[in-house]
Amino acid sequence: MAYNKVSEEIIRKIRNVVGGSVVIEKSELEPYSHDETENLKFYPEIVVKSASTNDVSQVMKIANDNLIPVTPRGGGTGLSGGAIPVLGGVVLSLERMNHILEIDKENLVAVVEAGVILEHLQNEVAKEGLFFPIDMGSKGSAMIGGNIASCAGGTRAVKYGVMKDLCLGTEAVLANGEIIKTGGKLLKNVTGYNLTQLLVGSEGTLAIITKAIVRLVPLPLYRRTLLAPFDNIKSLTECALSFFSRGGVFPRAIEFMSQPSILAVEKYKNINVPYNDKKGLLLIDLDGNDELSLDREVEKIGEICLSKGAPDVLVASSEKQKFLWEVRHQVAEAVKSLSVYKEEDIALPRSKICEFVEYIDKFCEDNKIWGIYYGHLGDGNLHLNILKGDMPDKRWEKELPHIIGEIFKKVVSLGGTISGEHGIGLMQKRYLPIAIGKVEMELMRSIKRCWDPNNILNPDKIFPAY
Amino acid sequence: MAYNKVSEEIIRKIRNVVGGSVVIEKSELEPYSHDETENLKFYPEIVVKSASTNDVSQVMKIANDNLIPVTPRGGGTGLSGGAIPVLGGVVLSLERMNHILEIDKENLVAVVEAGVILEHLQNEVAKEGLFFPIDMGSKGSAMIGGNIASCAGGTRAVKYGVMKDLCLGTEAVLANGEIIKTGGKLLKNVTGYNLTQLLVGSEGTLAIITKAIVRLVPLPLYRRTLLAPFDNIKSLTECALSFFSRGGVFPRAIEFMSQPSILAVEKYKNINVPYNDKKGLLLIDLDGNDELSLDREVEKIGEICLSKGAPDVLVASSEKQKFLWEVRHQVAEAVKSLSVYKEEDIALPRSKICEFVEYIDKFCEDNKIWGIYYGHLGDGNLHLNILKGDMPDKRWEKELPHIIGEIFKKVVSLGGTISGEHGIGLMQKRYLPIAIGKVEMELMRSIKRCWDPNNILNPDKIFPAY
Repeated sequence: MAYNKVSEEIIRKIRNVVGGSVVIEKSELEPYSHDETENLKFYPEIVVKSASTNDVSQVMKIANDNLIPVTPRGGGTGLSGGAIPVLGGVVLSLERMNHILEIDKENLVAVVEAGVILEHLQNEVAKEGLFFPIDMGSKGSAMIGGNIASCAGGTRAVKYGVMKDLCLGTEAVLANGEIIKTGGKLLKNVTGYNLTQLLVGSEGTLAIITKAIVRLVPLPLYRRTLLAPFDNIKSLTECALSFFSRGGVFPRAIEFMSQPSILAVEKYKNINVPYNDKKGLLLIDLDGNDELSLDREVEKIGEICLSKGAPDVLVASSEKQKFLWEVRHQVAEAVKSLSVYKEEDIALPRSKICEFVEYIDKFCEDNKIWGIYYGHLGDGNLHLNILKGDMPDKRWEKELPHIIGEIFKKVVSLGGTISGEHGIGLMQKRYLPIAIGKVEMELMRSIKRCWDPNNILNPDKIFPAY
Repeated sequence: MAYNKVSEEIIRKIRNVVGGSVVIEKSELEPYSHDETENLKFYPEIVVKSASTNDVSQVMKIANDNLIPVTPRGGGTGLSGGAIPVLGGVVLSLERMNHILEIDKENLVAVVEAGVILEHLQNEVAKEGLFFPIDMGSKGSAMIGGNIASCAGGTRAVKYGVMKDLCLGTEAVLANGEIIKTGGKLLKNVTGYNLTQLLVGSEGTLAIITKAIVRLVPLPLYRRTLLAPFDNIKSLTECALSFFSRGGVFPRAIEFMSQPSILAVEKYKNINVPYNDKKGLLLIDLDGNDELSLDREVEKIGEICLSKGAPDVLVASSEKQKFLWEVRHQVAEAVKSLSVYKEEDIALPRSKICEFVEYIDKFCEDNKIWGIYYGHLGDGNLHLNILKGDMPDKRWEKELPHIIGEIFKKVVSLGGTISGEHGIGLMQKRYLPIAIGKVEMELMRSIKRCWDPNNILNPDKIFPAY
């Protein structure tokens, strides 16, 4: 596909739509040249900050008529390069569309513009006694539109689900500028194909989500946090699994921090974390509306941890609770501060975590790779960072893709997949054929071609070159 | 599209695949000529009972090469005509593919063939201390494949979700016979477009689902059922809404039976139902793993009902519990036994139920229509039966479609849609443009064309003629 450059005339046309809300100065374009993915930089020719769905529609018409690539952008917190304008063109930023349009207590939904920051939504619905469960370290800047486009998950998915479970409807703009509405404030809806779910996780390649209807739940009245250290990872993973088979307990988060990830946080933040001499920590969060019942659940969890080999279980005070979760949310940054890195986001049937961890430990040792992993054990979602350390540049560049491919093949052989919540974006597309068969891939591509025949919407993402 | 007839040669080819598992005698074809939708009958030319995904694949290749329409069929319990072979051709029955392949306690999923009967799955997982939440009156014959294809919901969706929330993966056969796999035993998965969710609710028009991975939950240890009568429907609907705003209560079912639907059951089954002199009954089910906490929830629910105008609240003994749920599950059959009927399956934001009920009462009175409604109040899903009674045939045939269209327009104006769980199938496709915009419809059709270019998979369903 031969794209055109953003000419003076096109800039004029775009200004007619959004007025001064464009950026064309190179120095001001820098923040839009990257997301949180490693140190990649690709500059857009222009950044357009839409104020409305109608703005987005008009800009898309201009882009489509002139064959200009458009990269939609939320908070820019992505970890697979999904928001990076690799082919230049337009970055369409949703940052000005940051209004919570409605908090609907009766239907337990919020209607939001795509640029609403996750933490802002959490805070505003909490004022109404409601809870939006998606949570992650980047909540202070991640935006709901991007969360939907990448099917964000985070730490509470084990109880409350991921974005696919929470997004009930969208307003979105197609590549040709047409505006569509999908879904509604409806728990049951089987009226033609589920276009909402097709957009969730489509990473801005099918349409630009401008508004969304998301589910809320009543704010849980009580919360407890436990920390359980383990001397070996096998016991830790078996312990996490056994929560599900015991009945009567249902944590909202079952997070795993390995010793190297804990040590990284200690170094990064200059703090001390309890049990830093142990091989791994389980951080368990529970919530509920009945305090007595919740405390019985806490007891059961504690008993299970002890029976599975934890030498101790800490039930956190509210101050400690805050501290422990700050530690957890610092892990990603801390690990990545150690070295140049590649971050992977594998998802497994949770019963396979133990086998995978044994495999990866041996694999890293055999191949002289520095790997640190941690993550959402309850969901089977592990973040594996491969750190360059003193690996020679040549090996890092030439051999590493092959090494990652080997790991992904193992993951897929265990019934897993190559991305749980970060998306494929730019970074993982070369590996997509490991997880997705030829026929399935062609079905996906055929949808992309129908929806975006000129391939202007976030091109060069998800799908590898033929 | 000009289809071909099922010739002797094609029958021979099909027999080469499935042996004797075909039906061609007219008398034996009758059960496959209809589903539970009114009294429609369209005979297939042949019924093929596949024993494996590979069978389905080979039969589809034959059908695709020869332009023969294929209608996939599960339990035949559908209520929108989705499984009726309107164009003749092949009915592909999944009834022999009735094996539960795996009950995976660690990952809380079951892997099943499409022909597994819902109640059989419920019973088998219960033996392992697990729970498959989808439940409905037809559970004794409805099959999981059909449940997925129509995104079944039923009575427990308010707490546990509908099929879209519970189906994590599929194996399916495309129109051209190619076999695809989607999703997995994964709670997080953002690896290309969500083909699983595209298949859920696609009513057999995109692929034939042959296997599925569905979520299970631990079998709740305790269960309670309450019955609350109301003197007027407005109070009843307001009461149901207020459960959500109070916090601390989370029923798994909030069902509504109107007085006419109760009287219909009494007549149909020759029984007495409590509070049959009241305008409507709320049937509320709760479950949990902590008995004390559950009983506090029951108390709160009872208090809310009384405060919202219920003169009394019955907390059912286990015998009464069984009886009341049998009554609830008899409502559909009982109402339909009263007269020739049309059954609608509207879904609304639950806050709009009250307004809709006031509208429909007046609409029926003004237009001299006999309407009886009941349904899943917690989900905003109402079943509205329009009964012919002594309406003249001419009015029933000529005016009724217009009347239904008017009702659907009102539903859509309230943010609702025309099917919550029955699907569009054959019966509702003429109304689809009321709920789905032109652009969105064209996107859906474009997917259908890509996946099934010869339009042989369940043709003439969902989409109205151009």
